[in-house]
Amino acid sequence: MVVRSLEHPERDAITIDGVLSALADPVRRSIVSQLADGHSEQACIAFDLPVTKSTSTHHFRVLREAGVITQRYRGTAIHNGLRREDLDWRFPGLLDSVLMAG
Amino acid sequence: MVVRSLEHPERDAITIDGVLSALADPVRRSIVSQLADGHSEQACIAFDLPVTKSTSTHHFRVLREAGVITQRYRGTAIHNGLRREDLDWRFPGLLDSVLMAG
Repeated sequence: MVVRSLEHPERDAITIDGVLSALADPVRRSIVSQLADGHSEQACIAFDLPVTKSTSTHHFRVLREAGVITQRYRGTAIHNGLRREDLDWRFPGLLDSVLMAG
Repeated sequence: MVVRSLEHPERDAITIDGVLSALADPVRRSIVSQLADGHSEQACIAFDLPVTKSTSTHHFRVLREAGVITQRYRGTAIHNGLRREDLDWRFPGLLDSVLMAG
């Protein structure tokens, strides 16, 4: 069985440029905010987003490549998780201040 | 005498998208960081930046339009100031967490 996996930056390789760019978009902040609101692992399809599937796929990828979220295959679905611990370690207070901003 | 003035967004019109985008650049964060380090008003020419004058002019404008800095004419020079109070009011903790990230 082939387990497909998606690339994630190591914690130390997460950059402030990447994180700020990733969060500078309302759809991506909505994804992060929904993950922060207690959905520790959530399939892409379960998010409430005002965009097409292909657009949302793009936004999830930007977040993953910036180190903001994890994406793991569960069967054919992709489940997403917030890298809160990694972000808080790299940039203390940043995630919370952005989440507060809405 | 004509006093030229530059446009600044009102405090309430400062958006999180604009601020995060503006700060997602190392040269712009360097400007903000130099202003935060005690230079409350500083002429563009006085910044230590690794870019050409026209590039730095662009970066200053992005910061002003996002509501991160003020720019005021003093004679023929433009002086820059950090809108710390406005930013802290709009997005508590954000500026400090970004400044800490370097």
